[in-house]
Amino acid sequence: MSEPRSRGGRRGREARKEARQNKSGNTIPYIKRNIPVSNLTSDEALEIIESNADTILEEIGIDFRDDPESLQLWRDAGADVQGERVHFPKGLCRELLKTAPSEFTQYARNPARNVQIGGNNTVFVPVYGPPFVHDMDKGRRYGTIEDFENFVKLAYMAPAMHHSGGTVCEPVDLPVNKRHFDMVYSHIKYSDKPFMGSVTAPERAQDSVDMASLVFGEDFVQNNCVMLNLINANSPMTFDATMLGALRTYAANNQACVVSPFILSGAMSPVSPAGTLSQLLAEALAGTALTQIIKPGTPVLFGTFVSSISMQSGAPTFGTPESSLVLNGAAQLARRLNLPFRSGGSFTASKLPDAQAAYESAQTLLMTLMSGVNFALHSAGWLEGGLCSSYEKFVMDIDQCAMMEVMARGIDVSENGQAMDAVREVGPGGHFLGCAHTQANFEDAFYRSRIADNNSVEQWQSDGSKDAATRANEIWKQMLNDYQAPALDPGIDESLQAFMTKRKNEFPDSNV
Amino acid sequence: MSEPRSRGGRRGREARKEARQNKSGNTIPYIKRNIPVSNLTSDEALEIIESNADTILEEIGIDFRDDPESLQLWRDAGADVQGERVHFPKGLCRELLKTAPSEFTQYARNPARNVQIGGNNTVFVPVYGPPFVHDMDKGRRYGTIEDFENFVKLAYMAPAMHHSGGTVCEPVDLPVNKRHFDMVYSHIKYSDKPFMGSVTAPERAQDSVDMASLVFGEDFVQNNCVMLNLINANSPMTFDATMLGALRTYAANNQACVVSPFILSGAMSPVSPAGTLSQLLAEALAGTALTQIIKPGTPVLFGTFVSSISMQSGAPTFGTPESSLVLNGAAQLARRLNLPFRSGGSFTASKLPDAQAAYESAQTLLMTLMSGVNFALHSAGWLEGGLCSSYEKFVMDIDQCAMMEVMARGIDVSENGQAMDAVREVGPGGHFLGCAHTQANFEDAFYRSRIADNNSVEQWQSDGSKDAATRANEIWKQMLNDYQAPALDPGIDESLQAFMTKRKNEFPDSNV
Repeated sequence: MSEPRSRGGRRGREARKEARQNKSGNTIPYIKRNIPVSNLTSDEALEIIESNADTILEEIGIDFRDDPESLQLWRDAGADVQGERVHFPKGLCRELLKTAPSEFTQYARNPARNVQIGGNNTVFVPVYGPPFVHDMDKGRRYGTIEDFENFVKLAYMAPAMHHSGGTVCEPVDLPVNKRHFDMVYSHIKYSDKPFMGSVTAPERAQDSVDMASLVFGEDFVQNNCVMLNLINANSPMTFDATMLGALRTYAANNQACVVSPFILSGAMSPVSPAGTLSQLLAEALAGTALTQIIKPGTPVLFGTFVSSISMQSGAPTFGTPESSLVLNGAAQLARRLNLPFRSGGSFTASKLPDAQAAYESAQTLLMTLMSGVNFALHSAGWLEGGLCSSYEKFVMDIDQCAMMEVMARGIDVSENGQAMDAVREVGPGGHFLGCAHTQANFEDAFYRSRIADNNSVEQWQSDGSKDAATRANEIWKQMLNDYQAPALDPGIDESLQAFMTKRKNEFPDSNV
Repeated sequence: MSEPRSRGGRRGREARKEARQNKSGNTIPYIKRNIPVSNLTSDEALEIIESNADTILEEIGIDFRDDPESLQLWRDAGADVQGERVHFPKGLCRELLKTAPSEFTQYARNPARNVQIGGNNTVFVPVYGPPFVHDMDKGRRYGTIEDFENFVKLAYMAPAMHHSGGTVCEPVDLPVNKRHFDMVYSHIKYSDKPFMGSVTAPERAQDSVDMASLVFGEDFVQNNCVMLNLINANSPMTFDATMLGALRTYAANNQACVVSPFILSGAMSPVSPAGTLSQLLAEALAGTALTQIIKPGTPVLFGTFVSSISMQSGAPTFGTPESSLVLNGAAQLARRLNLPFRSGGSFTASKLPDAQAAYESAQTLLMTLMSGVNFALHSAGWLEGGLCSSYEKFVMDIDQCAMMEVMARGIDVSENGQAMDAVREVGPGGHFLGCAHTQANFEDAFYRSRIADNNSVEQWQSDGSKDAATRANEIWKQMLNDYQAPALDPGIDESLQAFMTKRKNEFPDSNV
């Protein structure tokens, strides 16, 4: 079958191409969903879980370790602090959270890339944290700053990646105590999408804020969110000094913390979805409320990272029904709290971009969309339980994310969408390829995957019988080849480099 | 990490293993969902679509080709028949459908395998129709009766395949006009799950009914559903004589027809989801209503097979957002009609059981569950746009289906599910592996995939660095090796064989 005949010449084609790029969502900065969220758990069940979370907060308590400042903040707020354990009077956390915004803007250096966090919106964000990278040519190896830059570039080029992310891989070739400078700089230099700050030490968080201030201006940063920052709870029921230090730094500077219980159910929480939800809600309540003591009104997200462990081997599992149910339930709990919600992504335990990787990722990603996740970290590139950033998986996942954009639009019932003129024109037994409605709409009617091979087996064989990973390998190389950096004001670039050089010279390299 | 220490000796282990097999749903005959359906399209939009379907039925009409009996039935029912085109007075089809049951039982020869079709239930069914088979050893080739038997055996052994299906592959080594005997016989002989009858000619449908009568008894068959039968519309807006003949035969014998518009959007329906839904609703209304003229009260399903075509190449595409939206919308339309709904499955255009196959299949399968599909044909084994039944994909897909069973249970908020004793016992900073709640629940707490590799990369490498397809290849061979046929009454077996021999001798072999 050939492409329906186009009407009009070159000008018509170009106009339609442009129209398609706009209509097909290729330029939207984030998803504004037009379909309802899917709530799988009843209100009655959620009330039980909330009541249990209150019990955990009041009777069991949460540890805030090696961070006297946090303990003092809680004492002053009216909590019962015994050693490092904080017990929360019933309702305290919810009361504190009343100042947290339900929705806010994270600003990008290119205003067209600003994203709206919370409400009816979904933002897809690359994988965060892997020490290793993987591609089909060189296999598995430690990540470097070159890999880091490559993933920033790929995310910049991917229409359905709405965010540049944070630690897209660990640049292990740089000293631990200085690599945050290069990571933040890479996000600013090689992309103009919004990004995340360093959380591995309070001073590195401050460096991130200072670098952002050079880009956005100090006043702007103090009054607006320009960075999202990942604060993991050390589950069960514990926050450690590193995370608390970063949280305090960012909250004080009005930058959004994503307070995320990081839970492998069965090891770090009970071996049941309801028990896991109660515990993670307690942890999220305590962590998010702390930001509001530090600076009432500062933006904060309810985060959830949950997988289960294999009860045979203890290994983390992904894309499982239990973690999907927890993801969905946590999204409901966050909405009931009126907080923006982070979870989901494209998870897998597979060591290769194979069928296991894809099944597990698709299960999580579709549930991410259906559940109404606002900030979907790890939406592209995740491999091997988060130990690897995969080049091939990245380009596979961005294709899936782009499909989620289309799904979120729902069904168009405009007159053109109804297409009754086409049904009348074609009639019983006819075919629609040549009809006027198809001619007018074929360019942007259906999502076009860059990676799926829909051809006949004969065509596929004559194209080399490539599997999806092999095609993905070609695509990311082509993308990096085509990459063009967004313009960056030379004065800003210079000031960033000067800041980094100065700061890097203030202390010796170290790998802690 | 090793498995939590078991309490009690061998007897305790076996009792727990048995308990796990029961509790983890390994023996349930079909899914009774405990989670709500996800409705992505608004009632207002559905009303527009329904109104357009009424317009199609009344003003444009549906062709019933080369089947004077159907035309006469419609004339007698009050429709306006002009040539082969039938125009339906507003509301006629809906009025006729008031006698169709919203839910019914399909009986299996093993009563423990009976399935409930409609309502809150989901039945997973193998792939239907591929002329080719594919495995990683021998590649792609025409299907044979041996392949057919193998897929019946695999479906029989798969706990989450609730049904034996129909044409699990075409046994191309048998003559076209006689292979239906061997197909129906294989379903009865090698499985005790419910199955589907032949639809390729009215007399083959009658043969299927006659064979079922030898198993269930003639009276029983006339009063109960023992076969589901796939009646495709020849979209757009056409039914052909072959399908109509089979439909009339089955409906007259009280056997359920699955009336399914088979649509590649863009070619066989408008290039838009709403237009496609209006057309398929009109087709489904006309086809399902016909069964009620023939025998009021006979069970019938609203079916939907929709994919889109690539507007570049014309090739069918799968796992796309548009087809997911249509699937979900059609499920809503069927519920509004009070009819059981068939759709969904594990579709892909890929030529291999690779990442493309898995992404596309998972997207469709999760949407199948979320949408509340009742009869999910093509849930395992589909490859290459339905041209291939894949052995490896089959075992991958049954693993996914088993996960859907767990998902459909929702979150357990019983006291054991809440697990507050575990949270109290472990407390902040502890871990849950050894606690009493974990000990009591670890065996059946989380779904255990047979195919996912969750091990460390080192373990995976020492196991041979296998991808998912390679592991699947080992699993299906092991399953076929372990297969044991369910007992079949020798008298029934004999009568089936005698019937087949007699009928096969009544006419010469032919390949049409």
